[in-house]
Amino acid sequence: MKRRDFLATCAAGAAAAACVPQDSTVDSACRTKATIQWKMVTSWPTNFPGFGTAARFLADTLERNSGGRLRVRVFAAGELVPAFEVFDAVSNGTAELGHSAPVYWKGKIPAAQFFSGIPFGMLPMEFNAWLYYGGGQELWEEAYRPFGLQPFSAGNTGPQMGGWFRTRIESLDDLAGLKMRMPGLGAEVLRRAGAIPVNIPGAEIFTALQTGAIDATEWAGPYNDQAFGLYEVAPYYYYPGWHEPSGTLECLVNAAALGSLPEELRSIVRSACRETNELVLAEFTARNQVSLQQLVEDHGVELLRFPDDVLTRLGQLTERVIVEAAAADPMLARVAESYAAFLRESRDWRAVSTDAFVDARAL
Amino acid sequence: MKRRDFLATCAAGAAAAACVPQDSTVDSACRTKATIQWKMVTSWPTNFPGFGTAARFLADTLERNSGGRLRVRVFAAGELVPAFEVFDAVSNGTAELGHSAPVYWKGKIPAAQFFSGIPFGMLPMEFNAWLYYGGGQELWEEAYRPFGLQPFSAGNTGPQMGGWFRTRIESLDDLAGLKMRMPGLGAEVLRRAGAIPVNIPGAEIFTALQTGAIDATEWAGPYNDQAFGLYEVAPYYYYPGWHEPSGTLECLVNAAALGSLPEELRSIVRSACRETNELVLAEFTARNQVSLQQLVEDHGVELLRFPDDVLTRLGQLTERVIVEAAAADPMLARVAESYAAFLRESRDWRAVSTDAFVDARAL
Repeated sequence: MKRRDFLATCAAGAAAAACVPQDSTVDSACRTKATIQWKMVTSWPTNFPGFGTAARFLADTLERNSGGRLRVRVFAAGELVPAFEVFDAVSNGTAELGHSAPVYWKGKIPAAQFFSGIPFGMLPMEFNAWLYYGGGQELWEEAYRPFGLQPFSAGNTGPQMGGWFRTRIESLDDLAGLKMRMPGLGAEVLRRAGAIPVNIPGAEIFTALQTGAIDATEWAGPYNDQAFGLYEVAPYYYYPGWHEPSGTLECLVNAAALGSLPEELRSIVRSACRETNELVLAEFTARNQVSLQQLVEDHGVELLRFPDDVLTRLGQLTERVIVEAAAADPMLARVAESYAAFLRESRDWRAVSTDAFVDARAL
Repeated sequence: MKRRDFLATCAAGAAAAACVPQDSTVDSACRTKATIQWKMVTSWPTNFPGFGTAARFLADTLERNSGGRLRVRVFAAGELVPAFEVFDAVSNGTAELGHSAPVYWKGKIPAAQFFSGIPFGMLPMEFNAWLYYGGGQELWEEAYRPFGLQPFSAGNTGPQMGGWFRTRIESLDDLAGLKMRMPGLGAEVLRRAGAIPVNIPGAEIFTALQTGAIDATEWAGPYNDQAFGLYEVAPYYYYPGWHEPSGTLECLVNAAALGSLPEELRSIVRSACRETNELVLAEFTARNQVSLQQLVEDHGVELLRFPDDVLTRLGQLTERVIVEAAAADPMLARVAESYAAFLRESRDWRAVSTDAFVDARAL
């Protein structure tokens, strides 16, 4: 333990009941107690709005709620491992924690895509209901278990936008040959619609769009897209985000490292992920509405809705893509079945609650 | 400290790193460390679905995440204090924690109603965004501070149903003289529409409706309403829940007691409330959809939508009620202004995200 770390540990410990029991004779013993130091690798730039800040909040919460006993060093994408190697790094123990998005691991675990947003799938409130009370979490854990990973939902972008386009999309023909950044099942749907999906990390999107390496990109929502300056290199901003109605961010935990923690710290990890999930969705919701206004009013962004026939076609292709993916992968088939059944069940309730209320509010 | 409590503390402590530092020489010192014992009074029957279980989950999370250092005994409504005296009990220190709903304190703090659901107001995702990132939490704390209380959101029913009626509501005339259980601003709106609003605790609703003491009642949503058996005493189930689109449950913390905790336990309290908030909304969403189906299919409940003219009139009356309430109470005026501004801002974003997505999903 380096002297600097030792001092920091004592400083954290001094404020914490864990190290200052009411019987003060144990102070010195507690002060020499080793602090657990974990690494968190992420797929985001440092403190990138909504994403990097979610990772930071999660790490801070773990330190604070453990009274400094669990300390977490956060690494931006590329600092310790590249953005798309977060899964492997946590799986092999290079880091104990990762903050990323399930959709990035579709090559390894096709079913992982269902724990990000699925085209024409669940909205955040529906997704959380399925995750916590509809069997979703258990399936997610089963899918990641062979890799020694425990997944938690730790952030949600909310429904995203349809993306930034350098040219207008007025019919299905306009998708032909269109090079668009798109991860997950949405990419395969786009491919079948005649486009050329490309998957590149967030940090490379601006340049790719600026140089014309891609013609269009989805990223997140107004808040994040504004921070990336995407409006500077593509004038048309399309909605709705048919491909990602619930952009789940995940916390990956190395299962062995988690298992080595005392019970209360394991529980603190789970709680911190859920708290992060709650706050990040609220943050995106609050920031998106402000950013959308700024994009339109200050930056002259043109807001356009995808034509009905494009949305209908993308919806049909989504069904086909999921059926074929399920035929090719038994785990994906089980997840897709659970997901679809829950979504089907939710329709009647949604119709008389949220949707009927939104209609009444607009009367 | 009773022997039974002492043993329980040791059992909890033995599993917790707080009491078993890696230097095992402090074990005995830690074991004699006093456990903090708190009381939580609630407005719900023990383990009442969604509400009582939320209080229980919150208490369990506090115990688990504190490694047993903070122990919480949960009291059902009437056990230590009646349902509607939770606020006073936590304010005067009879209990350190309360689990209830802000709307119940409108007599003491008119502004409190804005932290439950407001007629034609925000849905949960909007409310959470306002609370955490739109200034809502700060206003809530300001409103409760004179009473020595720290409020947290700790559960959300989601959008509720319009209620159970013994007779059909086919026009505004049918509201005349109707005795309906309804708390908060919705009660005043109903009164102006000609009805007679009544506020009674949840546990008394079934009997009141059965004996005809009331003609109608709102309570929560299908999950909770089914547990109360309300379908047995009123055949018509109306939607939408115009009066409570986001039924926030609150955790009240005695501010002095909270301030006496070490920093990490204070943070654990806040995190546990947010986790509870996240999970309870998911639970209601998942359970409501199942219960709605059972109510309609197994119990023959008739699902009816309020007529447009009734909803339009209730909306107009809501605006008037809020304007008058704001004129009478400066704190309510500030909260109402912040709330309305946030809701206004959210409309454009909601239109191109959630609402546009729901439309596209239905194509």
